[in-house]
Amino acid sequence: MKKLINQPDQVVSESLQGFAAAYPDLVRAHFDPTYIARADAPVKGKVGVLSGGGSGHEPMHGGFVGPGMLDAACPGAVFTSPTPDQMLEATRAIDGGAGVLHIVKNYTGDIMNFEMAAELARAEGIEVESVVIQDDVAVKDSLYTAGRRGVGATVLAEKLCGAAAEQRRPLAEVAAVCRRVADGARSMGMALTSCAVPHVGRPTFDLPEDEMEIGIGIHGEPGRARMKLRSADEIVEMLMAPVLEDLPFQRGDRVLLFVNGMGGTPLIELYIVYRKAREIAERHGLIVARNLVGPYITSLEMAGCSITLLKLDDDLLNLWDAPVKTAGLRWGC
Amino acid sequence: MKKLINQPDQVVSESLQGFAAAYPDLVRAHFDPTYIARADAPVKGKVGVLSGGGSGHEPMHGGFVGPGMLDAACPGAVFTSPTPDQMLEATRAIDGGAGVLHIVKNYTGDIMNFEMAAELARAEGIEVESVVIQDDVAVKDSLYTAGRRGVGATVLAEKLCGAAAEQRRPLAEVAAVCRRVADGARSMGMALTSCAVPHVGRPTFDLPEDEMEIGIGIHGEPGRARMKLRSADEIVEMLMAPVLEDLPFQRGDRVLLFVNGMGGTPLIELYIVYRKAREIAERHGLIVARNLVGPYITSLEMAGCSITLLKLDDDLLNLWDAPVKTAGLRWGC
Repeated sequence: MKKLINQPDQVVSESLQGFAAAYPDLVRAHFDPTYIARADAPVKGKVGVLSGGGSGHEPMHGGFVGPGMLDAACPGAVFTSPTPDQMLEATRAIDGGAGVLHIVKNYTGDIMNFEMAAELARAEGIEVESVVIQDDVAVKDSLYTAGRRGVGATVLAEKLCGAAAEQRRPLAEVAAVCRRVADGARSMGMALTSCAVPHVGRPTFDLPEDEMEIGIGIHGEPGRARMKLRSADEIVEMLMAPVLEDLPFQRGDRVLLFVNGMGGTPLIELYIVYRKAREIAERHGLIVARNLVGPYITSLEMAGCSITLLKLDDDLLNLWDAPVKTAGLRWGC
Repeated sequence: MKKLINQPDQVVSESLQGFAAAYPDLVRAHFDPTYIARADAPVKGKVGVLSGGGSGHEPMHGGFVGPGMLDAACPGAVFTSPTPDQMLEATRAIDGGAGVLHIVKNYTGDIMNFEMAAELARAEGIEVESVVIQDDVAVKDSLYTAGRRGVGATVLAEKLCGAAAEQRRPLAEVAAVCRRVADGARSMGMALTSCAVPHVGRPTFDLPEDEMEIGIGIHGEPGRARMKLRSADEIVEMLMAPVLEDLPFQRGDRVLLFVNGMGGTPLIELYIVYRKAREIAERHGLIVARNLVGPYITSLEMAGCSITLLKLDDDLLNLWDAPVKTAGLRWGC
């Protein structure tokens, strides 16, 4: 698979350099250890919000660093967990005296390393809370995960917790927002094509020209089923059914409907997906009060999409609408 | 090539329905004839800014409808010019009494149909000015174009003219801004893979797994050269050289550097491109005062990128920074 890259082992560092050069008003890239922090970090008196994970999911997480969202992000190598020393250094850099929230996607490496970093930071006197996101209903246990994988809800948690921190809520309350998002969101994805990890150089999996995979993970981990390609509307029904069944969504619930592109799928198709997903949500009596449509948690150049539904309450609605100024999400500032 | 679609002939209308449902605060989709207009159109006393063209380049143009950018956009079928009746109806819908600017990409069908629509609108007493964007230095004359193709500068023109109109400048001045952008911007693109038009169902062109095409058009029109795949840095040198040579950019000039994704290329790669493009611009003594990095004028799922350089003056800088609130670009509001 062809890529616009130089040396495969330089992809992450060169991409970060380009990213930091593009957004000097928002972020600083730090190397050895590598993390991206708000240009004005630490913000005194504000809870710091940190996330991170393997690269290859851009704009997540670095693209979500900025006022109203993350204070820092730790990018690992492509599809590889960042290390505890990255997380520790980023935690130090964004602690404004009010503690730091770690938003962790449920992958074994991320869990282990964020736990270690949290312990080390606490030993230095920094208050740290961690919340694990595990919203993918596709499979129980996976290639890199015990339990459910963390996917689209991570983007929403980062926005909502970032807004709560911006309001100067204390760490326990920002963490409580994160747990509400983790509990109230469900996702499922699918792929039309594989991605290829740069240093591997070939597709992660083979998917014949007339087939798709339902329930795929964001690293190409196996999903629920391989089958012949169907129409967009049929695919959306297949994604929405398990999402709606898993959480007791009730008629009249307000939801945020997030249609995510996997990286290689153009917007023209994502809007076709959104059209049907919204119709299905409304058929179930849900009120689609907010939405997000675009490639926000990607899998390199994989073609496909995922759908996330988050149950909203008044507080989450207000936090969603609060100003955010990052490379990947920006409104109200 | 696999796509998330239903019937190929319904792609544009279903995508528009989804788009309009996702952004009810910003836009309304109108059908028969088809156009997307600001939800609050017409804005009394403000010049209306209209663009349009074949679909398949999303977010352009519909994703740029909203305060501070376009008042309306006319989407044609995929890679097919919209019709004069769409343009006429949209022109009527956004005329707030101060006239309407048509921003037209240089493709024969677009030129012809926008000319006809402008004549019909003028016959109804609506003042119309048209500016043609032709920034692609790759080739002279092309499959659908006499002269140079209109590409990335269109996005910049739409933002800058939208800002000028928002300041209530008269039609002649908004058109003058557009001409300054058209004159001061140059672009060149490349492809790693082909796109496939939905109702055709197969790739527009064949490109072997180890080759790329330099100077590609946004509909897959032939470029300057096919060659073996090179590194990102070498590719960027090949794109920047003709752009820099064509316009007499001078040391100390301030520029906007726009690195555009063709649809199938992920952000992680676009930042690698931006890193090198910025380095080259600075090596030439240019000051990269503003930038834009992302998939803004796409070619369905084509993998590849294009680079646009626009010479900035104080007025264009201020217009760029002015608030904009659209699905595709949003800041300051």
